[in-house]
Amino acid sequence: MQAITIIPNPSGARSLSLTSTYPIPQPAPHEALIRIQLAGICGTDLEMLSGYKPLHAPQVLGHEFVGVIESYGAAVDRLLQLPRGTRVVAEINCVAHESPSRLASERAHDPDRTALGIFGRPGAFAELVTVPAINVHKVPDEVPDEMAVFAEPLAAACQVLHQTNPARDEPVAVLGAGRLGWLVAGMLAVCGYQPVMMARKQTDDVRMAKTEKLSKEFGVRLELVGEGLGDGEAKFPVVVDCTGASSGLALALQMVKPRGTIVLKSTTAAGSEETVDLTPLVVNEVTLLGSRCGPFPVALNLMESGSFDPRLLIEEVYSMSDADKAFRRAGERGVLKVLFRMS
Amino acid sequence: MQAITIIPNPSGARSLSLTSTYPIPQPAPHEALIRIQLAGICGTDLEMLSGYKPLHAPQVLGHEFVGVIESYGAAVDRLLQLPRGTRVVAEINCVAHESPSRLASERAHDPDRTALGIFGRPGAFAELVTVPAINVHKVPDEVPDEMAVFAEPLAAACQVLHQTNPARDEPVAVLGAGRLGWLVAGMLAVCGYQPVMMARKQTDDVRMAKTEKLSKEFGVRLELVGEGLGDGEAKFPVVVDCTGASSGLALALQMVKPRGTIVLKSTTAAGSEETVDLTPLVVNEVTLLGSRCGPFPVALNLMESGSFDPRLLIEEVYSMSDADKAFRRAGERGVLKVLFRMS
Repeated sequence: MQAITIIPNPSGARSLSLTSTYPIPQPAPHEALIRIQLAGICGTDLEMLSGYKPLHAPQVLGHEFVGVIESYGAAVDRLLQLPRGTRVVAEINCVAHESPSRLASERAHDPDRTALGIFGRPGAFAELVTVPAINVHKVPDEVPDEMAVFAEPLAAACQVLHQTNPARDEPVAVLGAGRLGWLVAGMLAVCGYQPVMMARKQTDDVRMAKTEKLSKEFGVRLELVGEGLGDGEAKFPVVVDCTGASSGLALALQMVKPRGTIVLKSTTAAGSEETVDLTPLVVNEVTLLGSRCGPFPVALNLMESGSFDPRLLIEEVYSMSDADKAFRRAGERGVLKVLFRMS
Repeated sequence: MQAITIIPNPSGARSLSLTSTYPIPQPAPHEALIRIQLAGICGTDLEMLSGYKPLHAPQVLGHEFVGVIESYGAAVDRLLQLPRGTRVVAEINCVAHESPSRLASERAHDPDRTALGIFGRPGAFAELVTVPAINVHKVPDEVPDEMAVFAEPLAAACQVLHQTNPARDEPVAVLGAGRLGWLVAGMLAVCGYQPVMMARKQTDDVRMAKTEKLSKEFGVRLELVGEGLGDGEAKFPVVVDCTGASSGLALALQMVKPRGTIVLKSTTAAGSEETVDLTPLVVNEVTLLGSRCGPFPVALNLMESGSFDPRLLIEEVYSMSDADKAFRRAGERGVLKVLFRMS
């Protein structure tokens, strides 16, 4: 079958490769086999291409997707089985059927887990993928594929509210007007909080107009970094850093109130050494929370209720044969969600 | 009067200077004037000599002390006044009498605060010092000067239990077998927790014997770093990093369980850029808590009850005229608390 892989080269660099001869996966006894419809490129995919996570063999990338049920392994509980063709999404952290980690939140931290398209398990930039049946969620009829493909990153955005409890009447700063930043800010606005998107002023007018449009559509107040931040005023009880850069954390440490909370959201700077002065964290007794995967049911509910439409973030849709072009596009500064349509 | 100051040099370097002509301070209307008996050198004093905090004029160092009441300013409430000669300690974060920050925990984060011997206010390495009367605590008769001088750092150690709630039956790792590390570990042991001091194996036998003695006296389990950590096993729900080094935080990130808590205790690495890979913080959803000053009453109670005797940590006592020698000694690797006796 067709699949997009990264390949470790002897030089240490990695290259993207489209293959049409990747072996068709067979579901293990407790797994579902899913035919991919649409999949999204995440910052982590880009980072993996740049060197994140050890790589000893070709790895099929991709962990954000929507697909349809193709079949199930022989031992999958009938209660878990959905009819063939049912539209589904799936959580990325996978454990063996015998694992004591049954809940999604436990599976996310099981030391023996594999992660779809990241380590230990091929990903969703392919025609077919297998995941444990317990990881699968049915997509509500009201949620089209172009929204459902955001289930994984939107769930990750929702995790912020599982870890912090911002006041309804105080602003929450979101740093990084990228894919994840807008999901976090938009989700907070829909849930009745007061997000403020701190965005870099764009030199590109088209890009700036897009940022302003997103701010308006998502109901998120926009502040341009550099304006009103120069004074280093610490005014936010909660700051969510989605920049994936050490400069983002440094800025967050300037903006957060004493005894406030910073949520560090993205692993896009993963593997690189961060250089940041943590003195303000100690002096101001700041709480820094690492935050990763989140609850799929919450994300699906948000979209089903019509409260939140992430399709605004779609930048471009490619076929897998344009893998190189798609990755280049996704890697451009300011570009939001790039999707692959598989069929 | 005699005082130990740091002086900014035109080259940018700083030098330690003992003066005998420092102006005798006069208490402001709401201040107490205290005659210092004994004062301790803290990591922050050493860092200030190395460049921590902007410095535009000579600064009298020192913020850990015990002294006796000499007099009060004219407007100090009679309720706050202690008889002349009463032994006292004082919190270091000072605000104006009119400030809305009345509680010690509020004063610690007031943006207009001054900090004894650190910024905006001369410190306690002097014959006399002034502090707001509200900052002063009477030392219980059962607590000798050599214990009372630890009130400030022991309070800072106690702050750990104000910010986290470790399980009684699970180990709490303490990194950094220095001044602050032993106060934290000893305090945790006395309070019924299970601290494990993670100490670097000392090549110096005398030093190693001292570490083992402290472990025994404080009832703190000792683990030597390198033994049992090589496997990178994340086994601690709570880790307190008192190393003041980025390598300490990196180690803490290895040792803490997923969704666990790291308390970042010291500002001794202050002002320097930390280089540490924060990816494990995000991936393992770790909570990193900055932690600074703590509750004096709790620290004084711990010492009054006889539960905790920090005198084990005293390495040497100097007179102020030996300031250079004392600072050199305090800066040596593995040296614990160095004190000045003023009178």
